Amino acid sequence: MPGTTQELYKAYCDLMQKAADINYASAVLSWDQETYMPPKGAEARGRQLSTLAGQAHEILTSDKFGALLKELSAKSDLSDTEKSNVRLSLEDFEKNKKLTPAFVEQMSLQISECFNAWIEARKKNDFNVFAPSLTKMVALKRQQAELYGYKAHPYDALLDEYEKDATVAMLDPIFTGIKEQIPPILAKINAAQQVDDSFFYNHFPRQQQWDFSLEVLKRMGFDFEAGRQDYSEHPFTTSFAASDVRLTTRVDESNYTSMLWSCIHEGGHGLYEQGLPESQYGFPLGSPTSLGIHESQSRFWENCVGRGLDFWSFFFPKLQSIFPEQLGNVTAEAFFKASNKVEPSLIRTEADEVTYHFHVMIRYEIEKELIQGTLGVKDLPAKWNELYNKYLGVTPPDDKSGVLQDVHWSHGSFGYFPTYTLGSFYAAQFYAKAQSDIPGLLEKIASGEMTELLHWLHEKVHKHGRRYTSEELCERITGHKLDTSFFIRYILDKYKNVYGI
Amino acid sequence: MPGTTQELYKAYCDLMQKAADINYASAVLSWDQETYMPPKGAEARGRQLSTLAGQAHEILTSDKFGALLKELSAKSDLSDTEKSNVRLSLEDFEKNKKLTPAFVEQMSLQISECFNAWIEARKKNDFNVFAPSLTKMVALKRQQAELYGYKAHPYDALLDEYEKDATVAMLDPIFTGIKEQIPPILAKINAAQQVDDSFFYNHFPRQQQWDFSLEVLKRMGFDFEAGRQDYSEHPFTTSFAASDVRLTTRVDESNYTSMLWSCIHEGGHGLYEQGLPESQYGFPLGSPTSLGIHESQSRFWENCVGRGLDFWSFFFPKLQSIFPEQLGNVTAEAFFKASNKVEPSLIRTEADEVTYHFHVMIRYEIEKELIQGTLGVKDLPAKWNELYNKYLGVTPPDDKSGVLQDVHWSHGSFGYFPTYTLGSFYAAQFYAKAQSDIPGLLEKIASGEMTELLHWLHEKVHKHGRRYTSEELCERITGHKLDTSFFIRYILDKYKNVYGI
Repeated sequence: MPGTTQELYKAYCDLMQKAADINYASAVLSWDQETYMPPKGAEARGRQLSTLAGQAHEILTSDKFGALLKELSAKSDLSDTEKSNVRLSLEDFEKNKKLTPAFVEQMSLQISECFNAWIEARKKNDFNVFAPSLTKMVALKRQQAELYGYKAHPYDALLDEYEKDATVAMLDPIFTGIKEQIPPILAKINAAQQVDDSFFYNHFPRQQQWDFSLEVLKRMGFDFEAGRQDYSEHPFTTSFAASDVRLTTRVDESNYTSMLWSCIHEGGHGLYEQGLPESQYGFPLGSPTSLGIHESQSRFWENCVGRGLDFWSFFFPKLQSIFPEQLGNVTAEAFFKASNKVEPSLIRTEADEVTYHFHVMIRYEIEKELIQGTLGVKDLPAKWNELYNKYLGVTPPDDKSGVLQDVHWSHGSFGYFPTYTLGSFYAAQFYAKAQSDIPGLLEKIASGEMTELLHWLHEKVHKHGRRYTSEELCERITGHKLDTSFFIRYILDKYKNVYGI
Repeated sequence: MPGTTQELYKAYCDLMQKAADINYASAVLSWDQETYMPPKGAEARGRQLSTLAGQAHEILTSDKFGALLKELSAKSDLSDTEKSNVRLSLEDFEKNKKLTPAFVEQMSLQISECFNAWIEARKKNDFNVFAPSLTKMVALKRQQAELYGYKAHPYDALLDEYEKDATVAMLDPIFTGIKEQIPPILAKINAAQQVDDSFFYNHFPRQQQWDFSLEVLKRMGFDFEAGRQDYSEHPFTTSFAASDVRLTTRVDESNYTSMLWSCIHEGGHGLYEQGLPESQYGFPLGSPTSLGIHESQSRFWENCVGRGLDFWSFFFPKLQSIFPEQLGNVTAEAFFKASNKVEPSLIRTEADEVTYHFHVMIRYEIEKELIQGTLGVKDLPAKWNELYNKYLGVTPPDDKSGVLQDVHWSHGSFGYFPTYTLGSFYAAQFYAKAQSDIPGLLEKIASGEMTELLHWLHEKVHKHGRRYTSEELCERITGHKLDTSFFIRYILDKYKNVYGI
């Protein structure tokens, strides 16, 4: 391929940004699908999304693109940023190429079948309806692990898709830490006086919930000139460029926690997307580091900041004036405590900050075994219930509130769950560092002043895109690799104030 | 290209539907741009739309596609529907191929420049700011006419883009008819007692306007499971499949006509889109016949049905109960009369049903001359004002309410305006036929029963897609080619009731 380095890089940019245009267009279609699309639009939307995915895939796996990347990789006269983009794009390309077109097509069909089976199984509350399809899915994921290749454990190959360089060797000690350190904390909490969160379940009218959520997001620094919030059944964040980031949330008038935490959580994701460098549109350096780091941003805002007493010192009086009947007799401190109530439960998405990680660990242990082949799909419900009983002391009364609760496996997302826990742990570690970097951070939060904090996140996390791996980023920011002791200190500190432990 | 006819047709389907998927995806992005996109999203959206347009264009102009179409055209063992699809696709292909890639690119850049100049010129209220860019645009459009080719008049080549087979030879007599037949009617109206429409300008709260508009659309038969209505600055209808049709409207709380007529108008467009055959997704037979026929559907509902006394016999009591203060002293008949007030004016989009066609005719005469080269852009404002004075007896006080009022020329849309008039005339001719085909149609409308009417439109117009040309369709439905006497009779009949003429 002839041409100067800059001509070659320009050709690379054109292809990358064209593929990004198509992928962002898909994101618009998916966003509309979840927010506004009328029901009968589903079928046509499905085929439109599939065509767009094919168009982008064609560009990014073409031999022409591969040759370009290889030639560019050998050039020494690229800037650091250009080098990083080319290096990461080549990694992605080579990873994509490991999956044969036949495998990709088979997986795509299996996802569709498996998702429908999951929907059906949930309707019938019967894991057996899901099992045959899930069995085929597990077989395909095992095959995928072989195609990708791995050093130590087949599950490593799948983890890598969501969190680069994450491995069983890295995660096992983290979850061992959880198993050892969290139960004594939980025991103390259980022995303490329980907190009252009954006021969350008063009637909170939809419009007022919505208006307050916008106020919170604005104060967090979400730029409504470059984004918006809409309703959807399941809250999510998506982005069509750093300059157009969409949050969605849900509202339950009889359960205020439903909207409140999802709004702040998605807000954290949204701030990350808005903070990615616009100049790197379509490139690795304009993309999020990893799922774990993305989740660190949502949990940073939702848990570390949003469930903190200082946050509510500022916001609670406003909230109380909007809902005088519902919250008239509640104090900011009581609101803070209720926001941090700990209680072992069946459903991951409703779990508190501490018991949450047992939910993840159970899925992690099961996934490892499924992919290794030491656990069969037919034995999954028994294993699930056994682990819930062991770690959380609860037993699912049926499949729907047990093994069928999450959509991930039906999508073929094995290796995804651990990023939730990694996100929480990164968040705690970043939060500790932010407190030491920003003098009087808590007082600033308590006076509603969060600009400096957002700027800190922007400089430390957002603006780097994929320049560093999660681990590198963590070390650059905090001086340490991921270290669970930050999380443990964080929850001990929090629950001292909530439960007096 | 080897293969059986059915294999070839299948290959044709794949390419057509892939291009349709991409074009419908573009439509989703454009819809979002006009309804929900935050301001900073504009730049990225522009490039995403441009990439998608390029991807679809590449498919539909590829040599592979051309060869396939030519081979299929020679096959005798296709069904009638398949033959029509192939024939029309080949026509489109050959027309597309007449424009060189260089010309297409130049036009795309010129549209962008010209649109910005128009925005700027409107801001400064100065045609001279627009003139240089428009001069280049006219030169390009003249070039385009030469590239397309034409028999009699260069303007014919441009008309054909919006209304196949429309020519100067066909339109001249229509506009001559207007010039001869409408002025005597206008003179009688001017001599009659004016109608009072002042109540339209009371305060009509947004939400009630919105709720009533949904009621009207539902009653018209718009399927909200296969479509929705949203806000936008300029009302429009778009479609992502017959099963997902989006209407938009605007609301002016101090001018109820703004929302009311645009809602019914767009509803008419939307019913057409919902009525296109779903099985023909992506094919000519699944696409609207022409702009003129599309406009006939919006005007059928807005003018023939929506501004009729029978329509308001049904709806006015409901409207009055929603707005008792604003309309308490108004009768259904007074509302009907106000809805049909005639008054020569400066702005096309605000014109009544009669004087409207002078607005179109003025543009038609100007476009013909610009494309023929007998009128220069510098002489355009003088010509514009002269014609407004001659036909409507009004003189624009400035460029903004004169020659700069419409966006079309800045988009390079020469030959588009006549389709508005054709739409009205087709509508009147269809409406006369519907009345003779459906016994008691007016009584049915007066009792809110419009299912049969929608079914009639569906069978007569919607379901055929592009199988027939506008003229063929008109003849099939009414037994006559387009005949302006239907429109004249329609307005005489209406204004007898409004003005007693």
